[in-house]
Amino acid sequence: MEIKVVKDILDANEQLARGNRKLFDANNLFAVDLMSSPGAGKTSLILQTIKGLKKKIKIGVVEGDVSSSLDAEVIGREGIPVVQINTGGGCHLDANMLSTALGNLPLKAIKLLFIENVGNLICPAGFSLGAHRRVLISSIPEGDDKPFKYPLMFNIVDAVLINKIDLLPHLKFDIDAFSRTIKGMNQKVEIFPVSCTTGQGIEQWVSWLLSQMRGGEHAQRIRDK
Amino acid sequence: MEIKVVKDILDANEQLARGNRKLFDANNLFAVDLMSSPGAGKTSLILQTIKGLKKKIKIGVVEGDVSSSLDAEVIGREGIPVVQINTGGGCHLDANMLSTALGNLPLKAIKLLFIENVGNLICPAGFSLGAHRRVLISSIPEGDDKPFKYPLMFNIVDAVLINKIDLLPHLKFDIDAFSRTIKGMNQKVEIFPVSCTTGQGIEQWVSWLLSQMRGGEHAQRIRDK
Repeated sequence: MEIKVVKDILDANEQLARGNRKLFDANNLFAVDLMSSPGAGKTSLILQTIKGLKKKIKIGVVEGDVSSSLDAEVIGREGIPVVQINTGGGCHLDANMLSTALGNLPLKAIKLLFIENVGNLICPAGFSLGAHRRVLISSIPEGDDKPFKYPLMFNIVDAVLINKIDLLPHLKFDIDAFSRTIKGMNQKVEIFPVSCTTGQGIEQWVSWLLSQMRGGEHAQRIRDK
Repeated sequence: MEIKVVKDILDANEQLARGNRKLFDANNLFAVDLMSSPGAGKTSLILQTIKGLKKKIKIGVVEGDVSSSLDAEVIGREGIPVVQINTGGGCHLDANMLSTALGNLPLKAIKLLFIENVGNLICPAGFSLGAHRRVLISSIPEGDDKPFKYPLMFNIVDAVLINKIDLLPHLKFDIDAFSRTIKGMNQKVEIFPVSCTTGQGIEQWVSWLLSQMRGGEHAQRIRDK
């Protein structure tokens, strides 16, 4: 019976996620679901990406947190449209929460939307939001064993950023072994070692992001219009 | 209706947690529920505590992970009785999982039991396991804003360890502000800055742990026997 309830919730979420995707596509907007452990650098990555792209592309942000609006305030200072979702104890965003938040954003003006999920390596992986790409930020201080412990998250994402590489001289972390493990689980995944403090590697990440926006089904759909 | 289901689950968990506590007390065993973000240092703290206490007190460990038995293997190498719980996707341990695991440990021989919860700052806070103390490990690289974002976790714990203080020269983290924030939410909480890499601060943590085992209702109960 409990399994039935959970299945219903996931089905309902999937349907709402498809609705969000349709809304994105109707507005020629490319959406990215950003996930990570608490403190791995989601907001810092958004800030670095804004720095690289603000003059080229209109960006918007949805901030997901259990509580507080600290991150939305930081993003708002950049002059970027931002909406905060507080889950009030919930351990992940879902398609319904996102759908409500989207009503408060100028979707027609936004070309790239970052959805910062709740800091959690488990629950967000199970709930699609309708984004075009799902991206995980891992970070050096968390250790290189995380793919073994949180396999679903590493399996479902399109890209993994390895953040805080500026701390490599002070910590044990084998980037090659970590990358091999992820590729073994998820052959299509792209991996980007970066530092959101020094800016190292951000250019490669931004290039990939632009290529995803231009190419693939999203661009195809734009061309077909 | 959904709320009703969740309430039933929490009630059932609470009842099983009380059963676990009775089993601990019947065996004169002191149990600690260790929680943190992924990679904050739960296993490293257990290893450091074993180093300080192995000759004085018989220790046992329950390892909770979504997947893998990496941490249990590390603990097992110390000659410590250890049981691995894999939640198979579940985002926290619950009292029922723990109850099953306890059947595989020599409870009569163990005086101090560490229960390493799943790496997650949200869901484990809501599920009591029956432990005598609940302890959170926060870490410097996660940033000092976490109490605002994950308030339930910081509210319910008896102690917070601030791990990885050896990285303080390389990162921005205001220990005083962080401690004030936590104390503002949770007046009875004890705070221990530590480094599980250098061993700094571990002595204070171990002293507190021993004082908790000796004093309070647990020791009272032992004296009353």
